[in-house]
Amino acid sequence: MTKILVIGAGAIGSFYSAKLAQVGVKITLWCRSDYDFIKKNGIKIESYEGDFQFIPHKIIENLHEIDDEFDYILIATKALPSIDIPVLIKNILKPKTKIILIQNGIHIEKNIAENFPNNELISAIAFIGVSRKSLGVICHQEYGKIIIGTYGAKASDAVHFLENLWKKSGIEVLVTDEILLERWKKLVWNGAFNPLSVVLHGKNTTEILNSDLALNLVKNIMNEICNLAKIDNCELPAEIIEKNIVATKKMKPYKTSMLLDFEAGRQMEVEAILGNAIKFAQSKSITTPYLSTIYAIITNY
Amino acid sequence: MTKILVIGAGAIGSFYSAKLAQVGVKITLWCRSDYDFIKKNGIKIESYEGDFQFIPHKIIENLHEIDDEFDYILIATKALPSIDIPVLIKNILKPKTKIILIQNGIHIEKNIAENFPNNELISAIAFIGVSRKSLGVICHQEYGKIIIGTYGAKASDAVHFLENLWKKSGIEVLVTDEILLERWKKLVWNGAFNPLSVVLHGKNTTEILNSDLALNLVKNIMNEICNLAKIDNCELPAEIIEKNIVATKKMKPYKTSMLLDFEAGRQMEVEAILGNAIKFAQSKSITTPYLSTIYAIITNY
Repeated sequence: MTKILVIGAGAIGSFYSAKLAQVGVKITLWCRSDYDFIKKNGIKIESYEGDFQFIPHKIIENLHEIDDEFDYILIATKALPSIDIPVLIKNILKPKTKIILIQNGIHIEKNIAENFPNNELISAIAFIGVSRKSLGVICHQEYGKIIIGTYGAKASDAVHFLENLWKKSGIEVLVTDEILLERWKKLVWNGAFNPLSVVLHGKNTTEILNSDLALNLVKNIMNEICNLAKIDNCELPAEIIEKNIVATKKMKPYKTSMLLDFEAGRQMEVEAILGNAIKFAQSKSITTPYLSTIYAIITNY
Repeated sequence: MTKILVIGAGAIGSFYSAKLAQVGVKITLWCRSDYDFIKKNGIKIESYEGDFQFIPHKIIENLHEIDDEFDYILIATKALPSIDIPVLIKNILKPKTKIILIQNGIHIEKNIAENFPNNELISAIAFIGVSRKSLGVICHQEYGKIIIGTYGAKASDAVHFLENLWKKSGIEVLVTDEILLERWKKLVWNGAFNPLSVVLHGKNTTEILNSDLALNLVKNIMNEICNLAKIDNCELPAEIIEKNIVATKKMKPYKTSMLLDFEAGRQMEVEAILGNAIKFAQSKSITTPYLSTIYAIITNY
């Protein structure tokens, strides 16, 4: 029986582990703030595909309680500098434990890979609309696809094993041998719309597209990201910018996750989404005027 | 006796015309909002160099009342697209009337020069700390120097005539044959600190300089402005950026005029300071990523 420890019992972590639990995986969920309630009631997943109850195999309040050995540690916290993943997992990680990282951003795997070079690191990108509705209730509004691959290598057997589990549970899974490329692809959208929605004072995607000045910024930022991707050996398709804009035009007006975080007074994933891209540019002596200006402004919020 | 009509009875217009009145110039002041009070009491200038009372020769509430012919029309309104100077003055301007424009920004003379190609246009840049303290009271806190020159030509006799009047009144005056160069020089500071103080959420000059990210933005914006100046045939001294930063470091923490306008809910001089520079860049097919990003953000306020 596969055993997975989940770090980060937010919407993403709860949803993807709930699906694994449905196909028999033993999930140990680390809950901090909502421990008492979830210990008693579990988590309700209200999904547009059908509601269900998620009762984890084990719920723990403190990582020190752990005496089990896990096949996987699934990390689904927000990607924030204040959350030090290696410190959190170093005493739990066993030689054969694989790490699954479901987070936003670029080059977010590096720190973990360097700290644990002998543990396989599976990097995952979620395309999903899911949020915490209330205590113990997660609302799955749309999408659900996940892209997974081994960090820095071809997709391993462990990746395919996960693929099968999630597929069995009804999740759309794409296995890739080029997870870095997929991260740059997602960053094209994320790196533009997320910070712009904040620095342009709470604009949703439609409002951004409807302003010529803002749309120009979107394109210029996307262009800088494509250039960086190329230098990182990830050549993105030439039409990716236009495709992203056309696809966003078809979407309903949408508040980005960064804007929702900002409005709720929560920390924003600025480093994972912008800071790491800029650091990479600097390491290659490339200037990124658009990204750097937006970064300087948003880090002042 | 020299007769001057003053359009824009704010702090700048009141101060520089009050000084002219002190040396015998007949000032006609167009007052809109504070007409009744100023008609009765005049304007009190509280200056660090000594207070004095300014009683204009004539005060008018409506430009239609005018039947005089003026030697000069002095325009000291804010530089805003919503204030259409040619429309305001076209019925008052006589063939020999000269126009004096005391305003912030770059390329702000063009519209006036094109509308009145046969009237001399004197362009002036004020370096002064002066503000409206209360109804009928202007507070002159520091500096006072004014640079004047004929727009698009060498300084004329009319410029030197004005120079002598202001000098006699105690004002420091610099006459230049290159007023465009002087405007670009001032824009180096204005184009960086003014908008950054707003988009960085109310930072004063010292706070901007103390943030590495913000200071980098300052330098990058100043660099773009220097490049534009050069293309506009105004080569600025190589050390101008460093000199501006060193000089600003020596200043007391200072809230820019744009920030004061923003905080008071008044219109900001975004077009005169940023928009015109960007338009010029576009006309020369030059990209200005830093200026354009800041512009797109500040026009969204």
